[in-house]
Amino acid sequence: MPKKGKGKSEGSQESGKLKIIPLGGLNEIGKNITVIEYLDDMIVVDCGLGFPDEDMLGIDLVIPDMSYLEENASRIKGVFLTHGHEDHIGAIPYMLKSINPPIYGTRLTLGIIEKKLEEHVIPYKPKFRYVEAGEKVKAGKLEVEFIRVNHSIADACCLAIKTPVGTVIHSGDFKLDLTPIEGEVMNIARLGELGNEGVLLLMCESTNAERPGYTPSEKKVGASLEYLFETNKDKRLVIATFSSNVHRVQQIIDISAKHKRKVAITGRSMQNIVSIACELGYMTVPDGVLIDLSEMKRFMPHELTIISTGSQGEPMSALYRMAFGAHTQISLGSKDLVILSASAIPGNEKLVGRIINELSKNGVNVLHDSSVDVHVSGHACCEELKLMQALTKPKYFMPIHGENRHLKANKDLALYMGMKEKNIFISQIGDVLEIDKRGAQINGSVPSGNILVDGYGVGDVGNIVLRDRRHLAQDGLIVIVATIDANEKVLLNGPDIVSRGFVYVRENEELIEEIKTAALETIYECLNKSDTVDRMLLKARVKDDISKLIYSMTKRKPMILPVIMNV
Amino acid sequence: MPKKGKGKSEGSQESGKLKIIPLGGLNEIGKNITVIEYLDDMIVVDCGLGFPDEDMLGIDLVIPDMSYLEENASRIKGVFLTHGHEDHIGAIPYMLKSINPPIYGTRLTLGIIEKKLEEHVIPYKPKFRYVEAGEKVKAGKLEVEFIRVNHSIADACCLAIKTPVGTVIHSGDFKLDLTPIEGEVMNIARLGELGNEGVLLLMCESTNAERPGYTPSEKKVGASLEYLFETNKDKRLVIATFSSNVHRVQQIIDISAKHKRKVAITGRSMQNIVSIACELGYMTVPDGVLIDLSEMKRFMPHELTIISTGSQGEPMSALYRMAFGAHTQISLGSKDLVILSASAIPGNEKLVGRIINELSKNGVNVLHDSSVDVHVSGHACCEELKLMQALTKPKYFMPIHGENRHLKANKDLALYMGMKEKNIFISQIGDVLEIDKRGAQINGSVPSGNILVDGYGVGDVGNIVLRDRRHLAQDGLIVIVATIDANEKVLLNGPDIVSRGFVYVRENEELIEEIKTAALETIYECLNKSDTVDRMLLKARVKDDISKLIYSMTKRKPMILPVIMNV
Repeated sequence: MPKKGKGKSEGSQESGKLKIIPLGGLNEIGKNITVIEYLDDMIVVDCGLGFPDEDMLGIDLVIPDMSYLEENASRIKGVFLTHGHEDHIGAIPYMLKSINPPIYGTRLTLGIIEKKLEEHVIPYKPKFRYVEAGEKVKAGKLEVEFIRVNHSIADACCLAIKTPVGTVIHSGDFKLDLTPIEGEVMNIARLGELGNEGVLLLMCESTNAERPGYTPSEKKVGASLEYLFETNKDKRLVIATFSSNVHRVQQIIDISAKHKRKVAITGRSMQNIVSIACELGYMTVPDGVLIDLSEMKRFMPHELTIISTGSQGEPMSALYRMAFGAHTQISLGSKDLVILSASAIPGNEKLVGRIINELSKNGVNVLHDSSVDVHVSGHACCEELKLMQALTKPKYFMPIHGENRHLKANKDLALYMGMKEKNIFISQIGDVLEIDKRGAQINGSVPSGNILVDGYGVGDVGNIVLRDRRHLAQDGLIVIVATIDANEKVLLNGPDIVSRGFVYVRENEELIEEIKTAALETIYECLNKSDTVDRMLLKARVKDDISKLIYSMTKRKPMILPVIMNV
Repeated sequence: MPKKGKGKSEGSQESGKLKIIPLGGLNEIGKNITVIEYLDDMIVVDCGLGFPDEDMLGIDLVIPDMSYLEENASRIKGVFLTHGHEDHIGAIPYMLKSINPPIYGTRLTLGIIEKKLEEHVIPYKPKFRYVEAGEKVKAGKLEVEFIRVNHSIADACCLAIKTPVGTVIHSGDFKLDLTPIEGEVMNIARLGELGNEGVLLLMCESTNAERPGYTPSEKKVGASLEYLFETNKDKRLVIATFSSNVHRVQQIIDISAKHKRKVAITGRSMQNIVSIACELGYMTVPDGVLIDLSEMKRFMPHELTIISTGSQGEPMSALYRMAFGAHTQISLGSKDLVILSASAIPGNEKLVGRIINELSKNGVNVLHDSSVDVHVSGHACCEELKLMQALTKPKYFMPIHGENRHLKANKDLALYMGMKEKNIFISQIGDVLEIDKRGAQINGSVPSGNILVDGYGVGDVGNIVLRDRRHLAQDGLIVIVATIDANEKVLLNGPDIVSRGFVYVRENEELIEEIKTAALETIYECLNKSDTVDRMLLKARVKDDISKLIYSMTKRKPMILPVIMNV
């Protein structure tokens, strides 16, 4: 699966060129990671994971191919994290299994990683370096400045990377929120200052580049929730949202407190993040508001708010268990109002729909973002993306973080702002963008690609295994087993037919008998025809004949596995 | 998979009750079919198919369990079709394999079915009965009136069914389009007349019951397209839409003709429907506008419009082939503008996204319904659903055609209009709603459920097969083969390990060796321990031991198939 390229980009020693090498996050959602290098100094921006496509059957996670980092471990001056979302930090535990560079991030970002690492065995003690927005970090001949942005997680930053060739701005994920819940408004002034000083390259996220206008403020969600609390005073409220959206959770807690409701938290990741955020001071909970699930029975339903995971319909999440009656402590009914304070990430629509349907069936009231304004995005829409361009006035532009459609839309915005097409680079992962005083161009590539994580296995499932899984998923399999004596050229036992995922055998005995008869014929023919029995050939003949028979009878193509034992 | 119920609903002979029995279309999208019976007379409204859920691996189509119809074939006075969409007519070919009742529908509806039947072997000559909107058909003691509605296919009707107990209105699928492209506005007057005479039961579709307001007119799409033609005079236009949306296709042809463009059609279903619609007079193409794909080379790109299938991202559809460079006659580039004149049906978002990304990657411009108004729904939104209630003023109400969430939303609208909750029935498929002068209630059920179609197989894939497919898809399989001599209690051959979809064997030889060794140990142990060798027990032990070993090593649970041959 990994895409092969040269182990080291060409000519790194001689030229004094700045190299920009995205190892993920282009033409895909998630798995964000970019290498920036100048001569012998290398930094890495973010190290995220991706979620499997629907055709990656059985895969848990996708991480970037990090062999380029491993090969150049000694050159890495630091990994710089923009914020604490999985698609920006999720591959850190896997990276730490082979290399151990210093990792720079804000307190919440690193706090979330430390919690994650409890589930992993790491050979090194990680070198976490806590920074705050506004700080600058020396990294060899490079210098990285953390600059405050707004996003759907607290303590998010974009990065300004000073290099001998010029300044690179990496936007991270951002939006402009003029009324943030806590912390500051995105540091527009600093970005403008850098723009006035001259920016060589802007790498800007593209998630919402197809959406016109501005992304609304997080405060808008608060106003909607306030209205829902006001108009549902008789109900218990169950609010599902992203666990990492600390500000959303803070708002729910604040509004609950104001309405004299106790708040209980359900779902492991929600409990984890709330405890980290409270510990680190990113969240403040009024005394006595937060209660344990076990204490809920002491209160009337209308005195309670439940904050839950599962806003993406994830099977076995807290909301899923509540909807399907599998939650040990909470059962929902017509006195409950469930609010999905999130929008479905593309691909999750059906999962979310399944929960809404199950709740509707059981008479539970459900509100979601297509009916009320209970969610806002964390990503910049067109006008904010244009603002980023206008502030930084970059010479070169590389849209990042998005599928092709989003990268192209972001490019179109830059063209609309007057940038020259030749100065915009829609890159591919692994490609090396080289920049010096004379110009910029893609020159060569380094190894990159998807490493699939399945259970404990990292990289042991590739294209062949996935192709087999898809084949098995589609039509199942038929195993044809026979024992022969190759010397005597006789069939000792079988053929037996074992099928799984093909047809319901008990109701299709005739079909199975026909397969058996055909296999028997083929085996006899092979044993009698040739002088010596070639087992490979015999297997190939059985496979071929049975495939054809089954297709003609059923129009299906199950996997055929002939197993011929020789005694 | 079929849900079992009694073969015949109770007391049908004695009571003179009207019975409403939906066999599909409730708590699901598609597969719409309803039985309405009074004493010995039975009619069927629609006979549609559904598309498989994402967990129905390898399944092509889902059709309703029609055993209740088969058991009562002699009582069926007719099948009445509201319109020609797959989810209302798609199961007709399967029905015709066992029963042959008269089938009533408008010309386009029956024309589409006749075309479909070319792909099926039907034992009977079907009894098609052509009707027009406004016509009434006697069906025993029942009488069915076809009433014009607007929808995203031409010649759609709702039905008013006069019964001795009262009038039932079945909405079919509808919207109110005050400026339809061809044909009349929905017959509001007739529905109001029936409402004034008294309606016993309204069965009303629920697809858009969560959407506020009115669905815009199809004309709106024409205006948007007109603008796009005007502003893209230099480009070849490729417009993908639903093939059955005859009015949409008509508008594209008309606007093309106005802009002096020739129109070529690609995609089998689009070509089929255009030819049926032209033949039956539902579409009029100005002379010389329609050209064959092979004639395209005679014209400049800006003189061409291509109308295509694939608006749902269907793999191997014409648009898919164009996007991925697999279309034999059309290749797309930066001089083309692709317009997706459709919205993604829930579950298809990723497929549609894949095409948009591929086109974007190749520099093709793409417009879709989230960027411009190039699509309108064919289904009634809240205000139109309320209008249907207000016109018909039914005594009882049954929301149909939708998932739980939609049925509940439609029920909430009726409650909002003042209907009593006890008069609203959210039913389950197979359930029998009995109505007489005294009241209405659910009483018993008949057989109903999903019959899965996979290749030629109808109903031979059920829950066990699907469970196996899901298991195989998730972690693949391991076959462990050994030959023993049970009498002598010796292992003659093996164990051999064959795996598919588990790990890439060549790079994981050590793991496979460990599995082999563990299997060998278990087999020896079983052969030595007991006096007689129980093959079932031996297989169970191998399966158990190897499952545990593999889980402990990989955290995966492949299917384990021990095959122990006895010679």
